[in-house]
Amino acid sequence: MDQVMTQKPHEMLAATLSDEMAAVNTLIRTRMASEHAPRIPEVTAHLVEAGGKRLRPMLTLAAARMCGYEGDNHVKLAATVEFIHTATLLHDDVVDESGQRRGRPTANLLWDNKSSVLVGDYLFARSFQLMVETGSLRVLDILANAAATIAEGEVLQMTAATDLKTDEAIYLQVVRGKTAALFSAATEVGGVIAGVEEAQIKALFDYGDALGIAFQIADDLLDYQGDSKATGKNVGDDFRERKLTLPVIKAVAQATDKERAFWTRTIEKGRQEEGDLDHALALMGKYKTLEATRDDAMAWAEKAKTALQSLPEHPIRQMLHDLADYVVARLH
Amino acid sequence: MDQVMTQKPHEMLAATLSDEMAAVNTLIRTRMASEHAPRIPEVTAHLVEAGGKRLRPMLTLAAARMCGYEGDNHVKLAATVEFIHTATLLHDDVVDESGQRRGRPTANLLWDNKSSVLVGDYLFARSFQLMVETGSLRVLDILANAAATIAEGEVLQMTAATDLKTDEAIYLQVVRGKTAALFSAATEVGGVIAGVEEAQIKALFDYGDALGIAFQIADDLLDYQGDSKATGKNVGDDFRERKLTLPVIKAVAQATDKERAFWTRTIEKGRQEEGDLDHALALMGKYKTLEATRDDAMAWAEKAKTALQSLPEHPIRQMLHDLADYVVARLH
Repeated sequence: MDQVMTQKPHEMLAATLSDEMAAVNTLIRTRMASEHAPRIPEVTAHLVEAGGKRLRPMLTLAAARMCGYEGDNHVKLAATVEFIHTATLLHDDVVDESGQRRGRPTANLLWDNKSSVLVGDYLFARSFQLMVETGSLRVLDILANAAATIAEGEVLQMTAATDLKTDEAIYLQVVRGKTAALFSAATEVGGVIAGVEEAQIKALFDYGDALGIAFQIADDLLDYQGDSKATGKNVGDDFRERKLTLPVIKAVAQATDKERAFWTRTIEKGRQEEGDLDHALALMGKYKTLEATRDDAMAWAEKAKTALQSLPEHPIRQMLHDLADYVVARLH
Repeated sequence: MDQVMTQKPHEMLAATLSDEMAAVNTLIRTRMASEHAPRIPEVTAHLVEAGGKRLRPMLTLAAARMCGYEGDNHVKLAATVEFIHTATLLHDDVVDESGQRRGRPTANLLWDNKSSVLVGDYLFARSFQLMVETGSLRVLDILANAAATIAEGEVLQMTAATDLKTDEAIYLQVVRGKTAALFSAATEVGGVIAGVEEAQIKALFDYGDALGIAFQIADDLLDYQGDSKATGKNVGDDFRERKLTLPVIKAVAQATDKERAFWTRTIEKGRQEEGDLDHALALMGKYKTLEATRDDAMAWAEKAKTALQSLPEHPIRQMLHDLADYVVARLH
């Protein structure tokens, strides 16, 4: 931590960009409407209005503004990014049979798989229409590639999550698909529409990528050491759902034969018994993998801050800098 | 029927366009590959190799060639269209809990919901990348709009299918989403990349739209009068799944109070008993709704043929003409 924060950096960004965020919210509501299928706004309102931090669209607005952009395509792209994110959440709900998201019941439980899949598809299509309206093929290229990385990462996670051969490199690919690909596309397109030079576009990509990775590693770590009230998740959900994340991957890499048998039984075979989570936590304690995971998250946050150095001096740059600190400040 | 056919028109198209179709198949296989997630080609190969008629990509190739196109973007767009179609099938499988498609078990039963949703998303993303490669914003616009119509139609079907208030206008919207939107986009983009004049692009859209509607109405009719061996479906599947299609919508529109109570119980409330399908068929017989549905399909096929008149003289034009006859020739 470089400084003591009073207002949280995402709140400062939200305040700085409040007019544009209001425009994004209006656009989202307009484009979510469907004359013919009222089920669509019903399902999406539940997610979109749920009051997430709107981090991803804010990154697009922030990047564009920091780079001196004066038009209004950044509002469209911010809405695009939020639509893609919401569609992904809807499809995740089908997939994971998860019962809670952001502390509220998932769309899946309130409606059904059918609605989650099809309304997700609708949002993807809508996001695609918004991108086309910007008229930038480069933006379309970036977001098409991000969409492919996201989907590929999700499929990879499906097979890699319960496979003890999954190493840190595969984990990183999954994390890029799950989180970082959309963060980096969100920041990159902000620079592209602002028309800044290539080195700065690259820096924006790097910032979003590293921020997203730090964010996801922190999230995975909090699953094992978080306060369930604050995170809206129970400690050890990933273990119970047999999801290999960094703290476990690091413990598996150093496991004795007996420990490996434990991981094989609990994660690969999914035969979990009373007390297994405690034993898993003990093994992570033995190899200090929670601390090592935290160090990794901090290192990615540092990379994110370093990337910012080649970007223009701007009050928003400082907020993005603080945001990188903030996503790992949740970790003690 | 204007003529006795020896070779089927889609087979003649396939023969005429065989080199380009081979290029499309190669491109599909290449783009479906995933270095990181081998589950993806496993799932898609099942569908893509299942030997459908490849009608949609063929329409794109045919439209482009008929309009004198000489480049190779039509191959990319044909693959795009097939990817979108395959993704839709995968997502349909999740949604409908259907057990059979093209006479083979669905991906859903062979793998799981998870694979169907995520691999579908991956194909959407891939299709999007292919479109971007053509560099045509207009093509992107057309396909983005088609994707939105498809998703909206699917959501609409979900709520409208079991609602007796669903009339022929709503049915038509659902059919456009389900089938005609991709047919019309497939033909329209062929004209767009060939750079023909607006009236011809409009004619290509109209042809695809009418052909798709004729095709879907015929499909819905065959559900009630088809040969289950030929169609790979059981007679009355739509009735059992409580899907309101045109033959029933026409019977509901003319129903006495007692008949309406029957439709309410069987379709809206889904409380079906032994003998209900026979009674439903008897009501369709009473009002001759199968015949009326057939007439509608034939009228759409005529519209498709009329649209072709403003397009260039070309051997392919005759095949497209015959194709419109063929999709309704299945109906007796």
